[in-house]
Amino acid sequence: MEQINDIQVVPCTSSNYLKPFRVHYSQNGTKKSWDFMRTHDSVSVLIFNTTSHCFVLVKQFRPAVYMCEWERTKPKAPDSSEQVAEEKEGAAVGGGETPPGSVGMTYELCAGLVDKADLSLEEIARQEVLEECGYDVPVAKLRRITSYRSGVGVTGAKQTMFYAEVSDENCVGEGGGEPQEGELIEVVKVPLHEAMTFAYDESIPKTMGVIFSFIWFHNNMSPKYKISTNV
Amino acid sequence: MEQINDIQVVPCTSSNYLKPFRVHYSQNGTKKSWDFMRTHDSVSVLIFNTTSHCFVLVKQFRPAVYMCEWERTKPKAPDSSEQVAEEKEGAAVGGGETPPGSVGMTYELCAGLVDKADLSLEEIARQEVLEECGYDVPVAKLRRITSYRSGVGVTGAKQTMFYAEVSDENCVGEGGGEPQEGELIEVVKVPLHEAMTFAYDESIPKTMGVIFSFIWFHNNMSPKYKISTNV
Repeated sequence: MEQINDIQVVPCTSSNYLKPFRVHYSQNGTKKSWDFMRTHDSVSVLIFNTTSHCFVLVKQFRPAVYMCEWERTKPKAPDSSEQVAEEKEGAAVGGGETPPGSVGMTYELCAGLVDKADLSLEEIARQEVLEECGYDVPVAKLRRITSYRSGVGVTGAKQTMFYAEVSDENCVGEGGGEPQEGELIEVVKVPLHEAMTFAYDESIPKTMGVIFSFIWFHNNMSPKYKISTNV
Repeated sequence: MEQINDIQVVPCTSSNYLKPFRVHYSQNGTKKSWDFMRTHDSVSVLIFNTTSHCFVLVKQFRPAVYMCEWERTKPKAPDSSEQVAEEKEGAAVGGGETPPGSVGMTYELCAGLVDKADLSLEEIARQEVLEECGYDVPVAKLRRITSYRSGVGVTGAKQTMFYAEVSDENCVGEGGGEPQEGELIEVVKVPLHEAMTFAYDESIPKTMGVIFSFIWFHNNMSPKYKISTNV
């Protein structure tokens, strides 16, 4: 169980990660403006281990998800004027009960940002599979599933999803991400026969990518792997 | 074709829509911090018209998507120090060619924010279907598909997806959103027999919600509606 405490929220006047911009534009002659943030495109990878017949996911503590749940436990969502938190060391914001760290843990596909201009999407996907999950997969074995827009309102970035079939022989490390970059990633296996139940179990916090890719597998790989559970 | 011009990007020091916060916390004894933004949870609705056997989607200009594509057309992505745009009226930022407005148009499920505390998710979904697409659907006819986290990195919000079966008789208006809120939404129909091709056509900008929900329908409703195309 993840131990999360000493939570303090402060307004963020300057962030290296979140930089809002405003675009003024004219749409069919009507002047408009929109606030947005720049971000990198990304890749995500559905990994299936053919030795153990398991999907390989990553599980990590997501502060944004935790804060969202923390907000839910409060009697009423505060407006922004209430957001200047008490700066007392160790005090939970607002003095309320803090929910367990588990509410901020999410199951996700192995994924990463496209932030290296000299690498192809496949090469970036390969690096993420190695760093986060410990499998060394040749680029040629990555199958492109599709691409779509993630976050159309704020970032507008594109995500490309791949499928990677691995075996225990491809496992060359423990994965877990880059601790020096603050990543604390747990590699989790979901057995194939439990996948569809997992996908639709709303008590398990996860991204839509997990659900979509499990169903994609179910539709496209089931003749090959004989999936018994049908949702 | 959407006419987009007079684009100017300026840094956004204070936004009513994007408010970054920073949370300091301790995870298993290690001090960490994370920049995030608060946002509302949301609902999305897959609408299927049983009269015309079409899915009903919304199509709209998404400035964030457009800016993402605009950035892609430039020789090199600028860093933030270059982002202070020329303030010249009517000048495109950086003086480069601006891509056509169509690159910022995305196909999405009818969706909306959960920003009314006194309404259930179903009631909010019902309102969005009416406002954006012009169909009056009884709350009891909304079927919950599932829920998941959208944007685990930045917002952590939860989205709940519904399925709504409508007929031409439920059509009471044109939809199009709330013009006074700046919404310019086009209602688009995708015939059932083209849905799977549409879902996987990467040249059509769309959200993962469209792809996932079309496949969900394919798996769960196909016996009822005899889908011919199988991907």
